[in-house]
Amino acid sequence: MKLMRIGAPGAETPAVRTDGGETFDLSALTRDIDREFLAAGGVDKVRAALAAGELPEIDPAGLRIGAPVARPGKVVCVGLNYRDHAEETGAAIPARPVVFMKDPSTVVGPYDTVLIPRGSTKTDWEVELAVVIGSEARYLADPAEAASHIAGYAISNDVSEREFQLEYSAQWDLGKSCETFNPLGPWLVTPDEIADPQALGLRLVANGELRQNGDTKNMIFDVAYLVWYLSQYMVLNPGDVINTGTPAGVALGLPGTPYLREGDTVELSIDGLGTQRQTFSNA
Amino acid sequence: MKLMRIGAPGAETPAVRTDGGETFDLSALTRDIDREFLAAGGVDKVRAALAAGELPEIDPAGLRIGAPVARPGKVVCVGLNYRDHAEETGAAIPARPVVFMKDPSTVVGPYDTVLIPRGSTKTDWEVELAVVIGSEARYLADPAEAASHIAGYAISNDVSEREFQLEYSAQWDLGKSCETFNPLGPWLVTPDEIADPQALGLRLVANGELRQNGDTKNMIFDVAYLVWYLSQYMVLNPGDVINTGTPAGVALGLPGTPYLREGDTVELSIDGLGTQRQTFSNA
Repeated sequence: MKLMRIGAPGAETPAVRTDGGETFDLSALTRDIDREFLAAGGVDKVRAALAAGELPEIDPAGLRIGAPVARPGKVVCVGLNYRDHAEETGAAIPARPVVFMKDPSTVVGPYDTVLIPRGSTKTDWEVELAVVIGSEARYLADPAEAASHIAGYAISNDVSEREFQLEYSAQWDLGKSCETFNPLGPWLVTPDEIADPQALGLRLVANGELRQNGDTKNMIFDVAYLVWYLSQYMVLNPGDVINTGTPAGVALGLPGTPYLREGDTVELSIDGLGTQRQTFSNA
Repeated sequence: MKLMRIGAPGAETPAVRTDGGETFDLSALTRDIDREFLAAGGVDKVRAALAAGELPEIDPAGLRIGAPVARPGKVVCVGLNYRDHAEETGAAIPARPVVFMKDPSTVVGPYDTVLIPRGSTKTDWEVELAVVIGSEARYLADPAEAASHIAGYAISNDVSEREFQLEYSAQWDLGKSCETFNPLGPWLVTPDEIADPQALGLRLVANGELRQNGDTKNMIFDVAYLVWYLSQYMVLNPGDVINTGTPAGVALGLPGTPYLREGDTVELSIDGLGTQRQTFSNA
């Protein structure tokens, strides 16, 4: 199943999209797709209602698509988690996951305008596989326990301002937390649709040029390991988002560092998770 | 005014405490003290209702005190913001604020038990002045604009696991985001009660020994500067918490590094903001 949220920012309608491309309204089941919905077994309820033919169909044509999860409690990011990206940034291959955070209020829809912060000259892209937590994960015994705590997957653009991230202090969060810096979606795709999260191609095209073309098989720490690892240090709650790192090809690592400017567009895709597209605009 | 939340975790009653030490129930005015309450001018409504004598008195004796703000959207922290603390940790005096984040779900009540993470040997304390945002702050023109965006102040214990923070990667958030690692309160004290946020003594006693004894006058970047600075890089929303840094005297910097162990207690106080006290227990 593909869960999604459709409509104006802050007033999205929860919906589900089937393999057949039909879209059904979930408003009768839940007010939103959020922590409470996931914690209450909402995904199973949607599956049952869909099977029972109880949901009204809606036509999403022309409507905005929001992030597929409302108000995540946190957005945890894993840095340098693809060998080729670590190399392009001149960083050592990490011995442990490099963990940092984004302001969760940066999460926006997959086609929303992304704002280039005032004073920015180094706004950059990062296509990433996002993992959305479905049930509390706390001190998991083993990476094998991770799967049952994952609600699904989505595309994430971990937009980054490299000057704010790397030059203003040694802590990265400042350059990761600017307004609109985390387009998410279009869908939260449930794990039954993703045969192997470590065999997904992920691509990013900036202004028509293919810049990132990676595969989740090249993660240094895989999804199950990351969920297990993080659960040893923090409580992962339903609706929390984990950005699992980006492959090579960010502007920071390219010849001429082609950072994003007003009017630039990026298009991101991951196998099975759809496509997102943003235009950049000065804040 | 002192806003507070009283009762069991997740079921707190919003309340206000007067200078006279009386406590009044705010349930008729708001469901909770949170982003929505603050964004809707809730503090002014409380002031008016209090002046009109409309609020029912309650007896908080024997009841748990929760964090004074429910579900903050983010907890932004400023590192090394007191000269003496930067020196004790061997760090350079920062030229810009060092900004990192804690998982907002770490926020707990001021007397709640704090959990020492499994595997931890370096759990440490940090008494800090917390600033709670009252209205959206985005690209403020000047530090002088900060005051009108501050809902109030509270004591914060920015509990830190130094091995997770400093030894596992260069990013600090992992060692700042463990379960229960941000006791906050007891009160959200409105700015009219704090003549000068840069003239507050702050103290921390661990197991009966005075370990931190600082003054907010020794901040490298003051409260107004921090709110202005952060607003250039991220949107500060009502209910967001800023931990403004800790003075010298953390276990990391003391002879023998007396990190916290099961059964240890800490007591934190800041002039005008009350006292908090936690016992530490193994997770």
